[in-house]
Amino acid sequence: MKKTALIMAGGRGERFWPKSRQNLPKQFLSLTDDGKTMIQLTVERILPLVKMEDIFIVTNRNYKPLVQLQLPELPEENILCEPVGKNTAPCIGLGAVHMAKKYGDAIMLTLPSDHLVKYNSIFLNTLNQACDVANQGNNLVTLGITPDAPETGYGYIKFDLDRPLGSAYAVERFVEKPDLATAKSYLASEQYLWNSGMFVWKLSTILHNLEEYLPDIYSGLCRIAESIGKTNEADVLDKEFISFKAESIDYGVMEKAKNIYILPGSFGWDDVGSWLAVGRIKKSNEFGNVIDGNVVAVDTENCIIQGADKLIATVGLEDMIIVDTNDALLVCEKQRAGEIKKVLENLRICNRTEYL
Amino acid sequence: MKKTALIMAGGRGERFWPKSRQNLPKQFLSLTDDGKTMIQLTVERILPLVKMEDIFIVTNRNYKPLVQLQLPELPEENILCEPVGKNTAPCIGLGAVHMAKKYGDAIMLTLPSDHLVKYNSIFLNTLNQACDVANQGNNLVTLGITPDAPETGYGYIKFDLDRPLGSAYAVERFVEKPDLATAKSYLASEQYLWNSGMFVWKLSTILHNLEEYLPDIYSGLCRIAESIGKTNEADVLDKEFISFKAESIDYGVMEKAKNIYILPGSFGWDDVGSWLAVGRIKKSNEFGNVIDGNVVAVDTENCIIQGADKLIATVGLEDMIIVDTNDALLVCEKQRAGEIKKVLENLRICNRTEYL
Repeated sequence: MKKTALIMAGGRGERFWPKSRQNLPKQFLSLTDDGKTMIQLTVERILPLVKMEDIFIVTNRNYKPLVQLQLPELPEENILCEPVGKNTAPCIGLGAVHMAKKYGDAIMLTLPSDHLVKYNSIFLNTLNQACDVANQGNNLVTLGITPDAPETGYGYIKFDLDRPLGSAYAVERFVEKPDLATAKSYLASEQYLWNSGMFVWKLSTILHNLEEYLPDIYSGLCRIAESIGKTNEADVLDKEFISFKAESIDYGVMEKAKNIYILPGSFGWDDVGSWLAVGRIKKSNEFGNVIDGNVVAVDTENCIIQGADKLIATVGLEDMIIVDTNDALLVCEKQRAGEIKKVLENLRICNRTEYL
Repeated sequence: MKKTALIMAGGRGERFWPKSRQNLPKQFLSLTDDGKTMIQLTVERILPLVKMEDIFIVTNRNYKPLVQLQLPELPEENILCEPVGKNTAPCIGLGAVHMAKKYGDAIMLTLPSDHLVKYNSIFLNTLNQACDVANQGNNLVTLGITPDAPETGYGYIKFDLDRPLGSAYAVERFVEKPDLATAKSYLASEQYLWNSGMFVWKLSTILHNLEEYLPDIYSGLCRIAESIGKTNEADVLDKEFISFKAESIDYGVMEKAKNIYILPGSFGWDDVGSWLAVGRIKKSNEFGNVIDGNVVAVDTENCIIQGADKLIATVGLEDMIIVDTNDALLVCEKQRAGEIKKVLENLRICNRTEYL
């Protein structure tokens, strides 16, 4: 069956503030040494498997120019615009109805636009295996990541080693982010994988599951599908999308659906969840510092320093994150990287939207 | 006897980088909440004791416009310019020969331009008492500060409680910056005061002592004195000053001279020796932060943050110094404030003089 891909690119990337901003979120930033942006890398990564013309991007309406700028070879009609973000279920549904209109049925790789993969050939093999499993019956396939630490920031998926299908295993259940003790017990049990948020299914399968588990969203999607190519298309999209309940595909579908399979992936996955990821991704110097820009570092170790033109001088720092931009500077302890959101909350409360 | 004052304003204030720069050193910065610069405060402080027309400033030639800008009421001829900095002995000598030419003899308060005093009325009383002691015979009087901690960054002065003169005590010896154990023993002995670098003497007394202990500099000063008002004045000043050995008044004169008296001062003195001083001088908020500028501080305590227009967001910081300027940013652990010089060394080595 034909392979297509939907890339979800509507996120705001707040954990990468101040570089990631409302008008230039994380997926449009370059966070790697190669200078390519996250969404460019995501597309490039799957091109051996899916033709450019069969790749669709769902993003916020405001980001369409960014997608066009960064992916000039992508057909314009493949950029699907959400009027507002409603989490992943409506996003995936919007992609699915557009793709179903074009292809009837097809395999639909469903991928975030802001993750990294180190071993691309293994990733492609895994995706191929997932396509095989998705092709059989009405299976929903998710790529799971073998945990290397009891992370509390990821969802986990319990699989059944005794029910294999191809290279995959039947999923017993999806679980939300656990506390540390629970995460440790998951690792010890060897029965849990991280939820990567990457899925493979047939268009017909995901649409059927949306109909089953999110009927309100599904009927709205049908009205959107009906309007495609008609004069009222934009109005219908606006009206339906705004009325959708914000719902994640994990909670809305995957936690309830049957026939879910998971493929344990070992392709050097990184969800690039915070500035800490830059410390993993980019080359560090002999003092463990990852430095970009114009920096004089005195007795400074294990820091992430992302500067611009301005000279940044550091003295006696350890485990710090410094990110400078034209109008905003962040100085944050590494352990507190997850709390950058508090800065944004503060800015929202004070209505200082120019910094968001 | 007439009271005059010499204010030494040739320093580079490197410990206040990046705000203090070669073209705008510390004494010309405002580091207090009142918005006045250090040199403005220094002059204002002594005006009840010394008329503006009797105040002289010795500074580097390059800073003359800054002095004129910040002290518009000071007569231009009272600004004495060093071609190069040669430490305090030549600086004081230059002031003394100019003032001797004008006044014959007079009391000469000799003050740094970049210290702070909290209790000005006590300071003025102390200076008055010092003038009385300096007026008797040929006494050199220094203002000593009663230590409140075993600081290793100051010189100490040992005094003799059994040899008082007015409110002063005879000085036994000057000692250079001690190590911590020695500093502790000084405090325990109750026989040592900090060397504030503020002196009171008669012009005739200091010139006599320069002749005695720094004869080479003294003869140069005499040639400079001879040239004052003549066509070759600038040439002589250049030639003599450049040939002077750089020498501090402490090492060159005070450590060797006789008839030295010290007045224990308790006027809330602060030498504003590093960014840490700003934490003492400026009002802190409920979290112990001293903040200027456009700052969002999340879980941030006991930090000194000096911003400008740019938004500075901090998360999870403690005991840090952040100073932002148009072209350079400093992030430094408080304990390492003394090591800012290493940044400047690095910049010099790399010939990045635009940041010095």
